[in-house]
Amino acid sequence: MKRKKKKETASRPQAADLLLLGGTVLTLDDQDTVHPDGAVAIQKDKIVAVGPRRAIERRYRSRRVLDARDHLVLPGLVNAHSHVAMTLFRGVSDDQELLTWLEKYMFPLEARFVSADFVRWGARLACWEMIASGTTTFADGFFFSEVVAKVADETGLRAVPGQGIFDVPTPDAKNSAAGLRRAEKFLADWRGHPRITPSLFPHSCYTVAPETFRRVQQLAARYDVPVQVHLAESQSEMTMVRERYATTPVRHLANLGVLDGKVVAAHCVWLDEEEIRLLAEHKVSVVHCPESNMKLGSGVAPVPQMLAAGLTVGLGTDGPASNNDLDMFGEMATAAKLHKVHTLDPTQIPARTALRLATRGSAAALGLGEQIGSLEAGKKADIITVATSGPNALPAYQPESQLVYATRADAVQTVIVEGKILMERRRLRTLDTEAIRRRCLRFQRQIAAALPD
Amino acid sequence: MKRKKKKETASRPQAADLLLLGGTVLTLDDQDTVHPDGAVAIQKDKIVAVGPRRAIERRYRSRRVLDARDHLVLPGLVNAHSHVAMTLFRGVSDDQELLTWLEKYMFPLEARFVSADFVRWGARLACWEMIASGTTTFADGFFFSEVVAKVADETGLRAVPGQGIFDVPTPDAKNSAAGLRRAEKFLADWRGHPRITPSLFPHSCYTVAPETFRRVQQLAARYDVPVQVHLAESQSEMTMVRERYATTPVRHLANLGVLDGKVVAAHCVWLDEEEIRLLAEHKVSVVHCPESNMKLGSGVAPVPQMLAAGLTVGLGTDGPASNNDLDMFGEMATAAKLHKVHTLDPTQIPARTALRLATRGSAAALGLGEQIGSLEAGKKADIITVATSGPNALPAYQPESQLVYATRADAVQTVIVEGKILMERRRLRTLDTEAIRRRCLRFQRQIAAALPD
Repeated sequence: MKRKKKKETASRPQAADLLLLGGTVLTLDDQDTVHPDGAVAIQKDKIVAVGPRRAIERRYRSRRVLDARDHLVLPGLVNAHSHVAMTLFRGVSDDQELLTWLEKYMFPLEARFVSADFVRWGARLACWEMIASGTTTFADGFFFSEVVAKVADETGLRAVPGQGIFDVPTPDAKNSAAGLRRAEKFLADWRGHPRITPSLFPHSCYTVAPETFRRVQQLAARYDVPVQVHLAESQSEMTMVRERYATTPVRHLANLGVLDGKVVAAHCVWLDEEEIRLLAEHKVSVVHCPESNMKLGSGVAPVPQMLAAGLTVGLGTDGPASNNDLDMFGEMATAAKLHKVHTLDPTQIPARTALRLATRGSAAALGLGEQIGSLEAGKKADIITVATSGPNALPAYQPESQLVYATRADAVQTVIVEGKILMERRRLRTLDTEAIRRRCLRFQRQIAAALPD
Repeated sequence: MKRKKKKETASRPQAADLLLLGGTVLTLDDQDTVHPDGAVAIQKDKIVAVGPRRAIERRYRSRRVLDARDHLVLPGLVNAHSHVAMTLFRGVSDDQELLTWLEKYMFPLEARFVSADFVRWGARLACWEMIASGTTTFADGFFFSEVVAKVADETGLRAVPGQGIFDVPTPDAKNSAAGLRRAEKFLADWRGHPRITPSLFPHSCYTVAPETFRRVQQLAARYDVPVQVHLAESQSEMTMVRERYATTPVRHLANLGVLDGKVVAAHCVWLDEEEIRLLAEHKVSVVHCPESNMKLGSGVAPVPQMLAAGLTVGLGTDGPASNNDLDMFGEMATAAKLHKVHTLDPTQIPARTALRLATRGSAAALGLGEQIGSLEAGKKADIITVATSGPNALPAYQPESQLVYATRADAVQTVIVEGKILMERRRLRTLDTEAIRRRCLRFQRQIAAALPD
């Protein structure tokens, strides 16, 4: 009797706030552990246990249980480079030469329309799209970053909004000094937030002066925040930087002494081998944006070489004016395929690597590798479930391949960030989608009326 | 009074079998006419009128009306190259070298598993996926083509099944003579079917002997049917053909005298300018399969040059063992982006061109250009509607851009082929999806158990 009682005590289940039971759990841990009939236990904002369903059921009880049978369960996707408010410019000027796109469309439209209100509704629309497609964290670089932070906070998403800093007038600052003041206030106001990491976004080598880059670096060091920058994206950037500084963008920043572990460099299409080593030595992270690079005709980033050099590489959609969506499933599939055709080698960027880029890779690139990117005890509970009921999920031989090559974003069913459910069975819980639609249609009418012929 | 009566008589509406009312109707006619608040009237299997909603409402009445407000209405997509039964091998061997993929996986798996029953269930699964993603016509090249034809007929889809012909033993013929006999019976049995165009599929220059190609050509001429073939897909094909025939695949077929207007050549990745002219002179049609070419590391087909040379070019997904889906929306987006990055020119293959490849281009490539590919009076009523309720459909400035760059296949709501509704508000009407799921899961277990380690 005594012995039996003791055993019962030892196996008495602990209370959890939320249990996901059943389904194929892809942990994305160091060993790429997959639990074919797995479970995840969540306590407050964190994962407390991941493992086989029977083991988790023995150890945990909860009044809130999500049935994940016949689903894939994986870390939420991390979009490491975007300009989310530009959803409102989605499809406004496709199939154009890069300079036409920028000078005839983007710059005049931004000057005319971008305001705090524009950013608010554009970001809300983007958060709707991102939650509905399985993204739980996004990095952003734009204006009125405090508004992006506020919207992300309201919707429950995790975000790394970056305050845009330029040496030309912008919608929220007349010069870089004003931009830096704005940025510092932004960093001070949002420091310590559990889900929002404020950051800096000096736009690029061709729009930000050397001295401004140094000030940005000092500010980032003082507040310990990431510095997002566009780097070596296109041949036109290479030409501009060569004409102005007689070198390449990467070497220019290295010469300025501003390359360090806080720098998150988007694109990095045009790199030579020495530059890849330079980035690796300075612990710069790279964000690969294959669809944007394709659509703007920018080029193909040497991602296999970057990974071989030990660089931290994440994945991003870029802004919806150049992609034209925020769909990380599409981005994974494109990344996996693009490098195969570019190298004529079908073993490059296998499905497992593409999935890692979009989860652990992006998380590490944004400095959040300790908190998110995998399903492991102690990490934040940022989790998505993916239905396998569609015809394209049949048959299924290998879950990473299924996710990367055959899953559309509409298969995402439930989205959890910090233990809070933002979407359940495709029903959004934190956004008024009808209000967003109405307001965005008003913006659409105004913007359409202002488009050049 | 008299005058009034006359007017009433003149404007008395005609009866239609089905009316689609409202929505933005993209006709894809020669002028790319778009009716922003349009309508389509259908009588039996054909479109009888397309135009502004008010005009159609005045002219036609019907007891069956589909409300297409807030939708895009366009011709059904035409998948001009696939191997639909290979859905059952979806994701079985990704990220492999081409020869490993073929010799370690595809050939042994086909030899072991492909039967009439395999083709039946694989094709049913594929039809489910195709209808649910807005494809109304598919071309297929495989074995047991009479089974593919029967499944397409049952489901209501339009199809161009091609009987595979090889000079090696296959699952349905021990040599090319047996394959040709099978093929002739297939052509005879299905000739004159309103939706099924039987065709021939001599696999490639490296699996079909010269004499067999000549017999195929004669048979095709006798029955007036298309000849599908893989052509100049990969560097390994180029090498094999060079070693065997001391020339390129295109020149080899030209030398044999078998290039003519019936030939539908899939892939055509490795062409020089003279070969593009050769194909144009012989009125050969080409089917571009960008995602398969990317995933297998085959290369990038010179589509802009083909179009400039006046070639008829369609779009196809290829088989789900190498793609890994049958999603023509994804294929359009990839086609539009791939050529931009390959040429570093963002004006290549604009959205409008990508949409034309997937509709009129594919229809013309398959010899069905008179019947389908656009919404015009007299053409077959093969129509899809696409919802614009998702966040990625907001805002919308240009419908072709919206369809190609921002629409996922799950936005397809209603699918009509020959005036018959195959899917309405995403409910499939002609397939027992649960029976398909059960049977495909059985195949999955058998195939998974047979996979090499």
